[in-house]
Amino acid sequence: MNKFRFLTAGESHGKCLTAIIEGLPSGFEINPDFINEELKRRQMGYGRGARMQIECDTVEITSGVRFGKTLGSPVTLVIQNKDYENWQKIMSIYTEDLNSEKSFTKCRPGHADYAGSIKYNFKDLRNILERSSARKTAIEVAVGAVAKQILNQFGIKCYSEIIQIGQGRTEEEFHAEIDRAKEVGDTLGGKFKVVYENLPVGLGSYVHWDRMLDGKIAQAVMSVPAVKSVSIGNNHGYKMFGSEFHDEMFREDGKVVRKTNNAGGIEGGMTNGEPLVVTAVMKPIPTLRKPLKTVDLSSMEECEAHFERSDTCAVEACAVVTEARIAYVLLDEILMKFSGDNSDEILEKYRK
Amino acid sequence: MNKFRFLTAGESHGKCLTAIIEGLPSGFEINPDFINEELKRRQMGYGRGARMQIECDTVEITSGVRFGKTLGSPVTLVIQNKDYENWQKIMSIYTEDLNSEKSFTKCRPGHADYAGSIKYNFKDLRNILERSSARKTAIEVAVGAVAKQILNQFGIKCYSEIIQIGQGRTEEEFHAEIDRAKEVGDTLGGKFKVVYENLPVGLGSYVHWDRMLDGKIAQAVMSVPAVKSVSIGNNHGYKMFGSEFHDEMFREDGKVVRKTNNAGGIEGGMTNGEPLVVTAVMKPIPTLRKPLKTVDLSSMEECEAHFERSDTCAVEACAVVTEARIAYVLLDEILMKFSGDNSDEILEKYRK
Amino acid sequence: MNKFRFLTAGESHGKCLTAIIEGLPSGFEINPDFINEELKRRQMGYGRGARMQIECDTVEITSGVRFGKTLGSPVTLVIQNKDYENWQKIMSIYTEDLNSEKSFTKCRPGHADYAGSIKYNFKDLRNILERSSARKTAIEVAVGAVAKQILNQFGIKCYSEIIQIGQGRTEEEFHAEIDRAKEVGDTLGGKFKVVYENLPVGLGSYVHWDRMLDGKIAQAVMSVPAVKSVSIGNNHGYKMFGSEFHDEMFREDGKVVRKTNNAGGIEGGMTNGEPLVVTAVMKPIPTLRKPLKTVDLSSMEECEAHFERSDTCAVEACAVVTEARIAYVLLDEILMKFSGDNSDEILEKYRK
Amino acid sequence: MNKFRFLTAGESHGKCLTAIIEGLPSGFEINPDFINEELKRRQMGYGRGARMQIECDTVEITSGVRFGKTLGSPVTLVIQNKDYENWQKIMSIYTEDLNSEKSFTKCRPGHADYAGSIKYNFKDLRNILERSSARKTAIEVAVGAVAKQILNQFGIKCYSEIIQIGQGRTEEEFHAEIDRAKEVGDTLGGKFKVVYENLPVGLGSYVHWDRMLDGKIAQAVMSVPAVKSVSIGNNHGYKMFGSEFHDEMFREDGKVVRKTNNAGGIEGGMTNGEPLVVTAVMKPIPTLRKPLKTVDLSSMEECEAHFERSDTCAVEACAVVTEARIAYVLLDEILMKFSGDNSDEILEKYRK
Repeated sequence: MNKFRFLTAGESHGKCLTAIIEGLPSGFEINPDFINEELKRRQMGYGRGARMQIECDTVEITSGVRFGKTLGSPVTLVIQNKDYENWQKIMSIYTEDLNSEKSFTKCRPGHADYAGSIKYNFKDLRNILERSSARKTAIEVAVGAVAKQILNQFGIKCYSEIIQIGQGRTEEEFHAEIDRAKEVGDTLGGKFKVVYENLPVGLGSYVHWDRMLDGKIAQAVMSVPAVKSVSIGNNHGYKMFGSEFHDEMFREDGKVVRKTNNAGGIEGGMTNGEPLVVTAVMKPIPTLRKPLKTVDLSSMEECEAHFERSDTCAVEACAVVTEARIAYVLLDEILMKFSGDNSDEILEKYRK
Repeated sequence: MNKFRFLTAGESHGKCLTAIIEGLPSGFEINPDFINEELKRRQMGYGRGARMQIECDTVEITSGVRFGKTLGSPVTLVIQNKDYENWQKIMSIYTEDLNSEKSFTKCRPGHADYAGSIKYNFKDLRNILERSSARKTAIEVAVGAVAKQILNQFGIKCYSEIIQIGQGRTEEEFHAEIDRAKEVGDTLGGKFKVVYENLPVGLGSYVHWDRMLDGKIAQAVMSVPAVKSVSIGNNHGYKMFGSEFHDEMFREDGKVVRKTNNAGGIEGGMTNGEPLVVTAVMKPIPTLRKPLKTVDLSSMEECEAHFERSDTCAVEACAVVTEARIAYVLLDEILMKFSGDNSDEILEKYRK
Repeated sequence: MNKFRFLTAGESHGKCLTAIIEGLPSGFEINPDFINEELKRRQMGYGRGARMQIECDTVEITSGVRFGKTLGSPVTLVIQNKDYENWQKIMSIYTEDLNSEKSFTKCRPGHADYAGSIKYNFKDLRNILERSSARKTAIEVAVGAVAKQILNQFGIKCYSEIIQIGQGRTEEEFHAEIDRAKEVGDTLGGKFKVVYENLPVGLGSYVHWDRMLDGKIAQAVMSVPAVKSVSIGNNHGYKMFGSEFHDEMFREDGKVVRKTNNAGGIEGGMTNGEPLVVTAVMKPIPTLRKPLKTVDLSSMEECEAHFERSDTCAVEACAVVTEARIAYVLLDEILMKFSGDNSDEILEKYRK
Repeated sequence: MNKFRFLTAGESHGKCLTAIIEGLPSGFEINPDFINEELKRRQMGYGRGARMQIECDTVEITSGVRFGKTLGSPVTLVIQNKDYENWQKIMSIYTEDLNSEKSFTKCRPGHADYAGSIKYNFKDLRNILERSSARKTAIEVAVGAVAKQILNQFGIKCYSEIIQIGQGRTEEEFHAEIDRAKEVGDTLGGKFKVVYENLPVGLGSYVHWDRMLDGKIAQAVMSVPAVKSVSIGNNHGYKMFGSEFHDEMFREDGKVVRKTNNAGGIEGGMTNGEPLVVTAVMKPIPTLRKPLKTVDLSSMEECEAHFERSDTCAVEACAVVTEARIAYVLLDEILMKFSGDNSDEILEKYRK
């Protein structure tokens, strides 16, 4: 990313999650209430476990905003972990607190545990799971909410919807599938789509492979925890003829219009004025009450995977995170295209 | 990318395609024959048009390699465009040659033409198509071939295979589908997979969203021209239970082993020691003999899209390009993980 | 930077300063006491004003470290602004607190005020000075202290010394110069050097202009607030013969040795095994009790520049910040060269 | 750099030097004659050796420009090495040509030879000197000439002048000093300044250390081969009072004006509307006819450094390269600030 860069930090049971966003122009409106609404959306959805009640995340903005507007300087977002006081010793930064907890060594399939323990040379898998946990998506959603607020000031809106969970294809069926999984101690993933509307023509570019907007979106979405597949537009193109797939162009009121959107809003790596349609597949949550077979990395004995209380299905949350991720990419592109240092000159340029 | 950075350049009918690769350590073996083999693979495949015969691409290395080994300095690759002499006036860099050809103004659906003309403020669509053309993937494959040669020196290998074209699911059916499309002047896309084997555990990371290997691969693949969908591992996870999807771990000969690979070789954004399996969907080629309806951007009249000789189906080429793209990402990760300035120290570290 | 990336945030009178450091390997020792010592060094030095007493900065680490060692996940550093409670309304993030203070409109020469007000379209210069203030160097020193602790684990050490302040060339003279300036309400800059010892040979590279280590150091140092000049090694080379300047090489105990270090430890953009010697010039502090002539940007009347309590001379602090900046660059280079994911494999490689 | 990125490649006696520039908007005028003029300026100057006659560099543009204007796609520049036919075997990319020349093992002080041989594990120092040679600045000047042509379209101009060579401070004295050095087989460096005029207010920023324009310029200049010192504005600030140094502001014709420019055009890391004044010191050329003492890295015997025909003084060339380097930085900043995809919208925005 070129203008909108940020870093996030924080362990699942650490003191807090933090993000610093750098590269925002001055003068854009930022309201913490909007961010908190997005944080709430992330915590909801049928199939979530007990931790969601503990969390009830709210953001604090500690820099970069004054009197409701961005200063041009870096914006800091902080979300406190509510349960931290019970974890202070276990998550202590001090050497003397070592051994305050028994190491956790039973590798969980589907998680970062195995590769992480080799990569970072850790015996205690807690050192990995605290950061690899989906908990960190809370602060990512907060960052995305900042991006969304600015995109809104350009008239850009988004929404998402669940397409399939298990065999279910309607809300009613989703719930039935989730109930069934919960009963047997199992978990489910799902398929969902995210749509962004009112994007200007020409975000992204064909001139170099790493400027293609579809590629940037694919990275942002595929790196959402548990996402295994990303598509833009109609992903049945492999069984269609070119004459069926491509979105023909017509003239209406002196403008170019389309009757179809199989391209999902992107041609040649650029937005083409149609809605951006991204579909993603989330795998089932890998923390199961019904335990998976695995290996204890300390004894190298076969065993059952560790279980921490968890969700049965988190597809709705995953869609919210995906919205946030796409917001990062789009804001960066908007700021590159309608660049400037303050909101007045940028929005003036945009409106032309 | 951090170590392995490169830029490519060149228009479809310009003098040549060029790439500069910067960040390679010294001492790795590079053989132009290997690159030429990959260029040949890209030009083959059932369903390719006449231009493939003209092209017959070969690479010239003009810097960065001496006596068969990398120098550590930037490597330049050049592929001459064989047909350039017929295009010199049309592609001239000089102002005085303007008007050497009639502008091309009939927008082709599915291409960069429409968004490109608005973005770059061009009336002559040739200014766009010359670069947005898939021709540029030739030099990308050459860059990928350099990456692959180095990956080979780490014992890493890849292959790809076509899964589906139209309704066809076997080679015989692929050909029948392509013949049928060609007959009616139509085009086809397809679905294919690329597999990389023998990767070390722990490429990529969960610690920050933009370090996730799956995300980097998704960008590299989705930005291949015409690719609309990217999946890692089994992308039917949305209809499976967690207990069915996740790859349980067992002990065998004192090592952790798996019996399944639904994760496609990636857990927690890192390689886990299993083969990396990437599936992609290519849309049908948007240049059709059977013309699509569109608009002439100069007159704003509805018309039929411009046709330049083209392929019926290029899924095999697309798979070769995809292999190359993934090679970029993997080499960058390998060089970050087993870093050093020369092949001796890197390979020594790797072998441990 | 490639591995060691970070962002800092925070206004001078905001709630706190924050930094997130991303890209550190796991297993390196981090001790907050070391960071606090560096923060104290930054606040000391002859010629500092009253605010230094208020500040007495201490760091809190809220992520990325557990039981005294890095986790590989991002490290968050926070320094509270002690005086914040008196500034809550003035620095409020809420729109409703607007007008809680009269705008500040008298442009201070030598500061960011003038260009900042045009760039970011601000009438109230507080929106600029709160971030352009040297206050932000506190958190930069904290980040540098993390880098230094890791560099120490590679045996790399640094020190700095003041060369000249005004006409003074010894500590006694420095104090006399500062006393004289303070008396008349004026300010002073100075010249100082920073030396890093025990660096490995071959950090940086000549292969591409943006890999040259001297260039990276120059950026890091010149962007320290108030620094106007950066030199590496003997900067009188413009009046010397080549035969006088270049550091001849000799053999001693089977090793290559030098008797001079005019190159300041860098040849061909790389460390050459000699101490890295960087000299910098700090301009006088631009906030003077004896006011400078300027213009009020609101009325466009000529006036005298605004004065906030300030220091007479801060060259010692500037040297501490410069040490920190160079630490960023060196750590990034070290991590690129002796790369790996955890301290064990990195240090093992380094020791060979 | 964010928009204007480029890579250069090529060995001193390789076939050619190449650069690819990516990120230029469409529609800017590019004329190869302008580039060739800059290449000629780089080759001139009192004190240059015989190779300058052989070289007589001219550029070929092989992509990214059509009918005199940028296409938005990457621009490729190529400069052939005239003498290549005599070096084909020595610089061959093929393994079988190994041993076509005796290895070169006598380390030259002041060059990349020593550190480079350790870093890249080379016994033959030619593998280093071919890229570390100042020859590569020819293509860097070509890239800078492209940047300058675009900057010119924004009304931005530059010039440079020599300040001191040896003890000489006037052109006449420069020549006398150079003659004297040449006679005794020695070399000289010098001090020079580069000035850019008519820059808009507000390039660069104070909001984050790596956005400071002075820092970016310092990197660009310090990484010019042989430059050891960079200053912006008056670098005697260390001996002046604040009241003497800072550039007071006055009102004239309703505008803010200055009577001095000690800041050298930069305050708070941003352009302030005054001319940008950069001073640099070049060390004496390290290749001397009068040989330096050194060590043969193959035998580890003390010996005299290898001499290849060289220049006595190249300060004028160094100033031309420095102009080019600063042009990269300024163009990137201009394109970030007045961003857009084509020259029409960018220049329209700029003119407001």
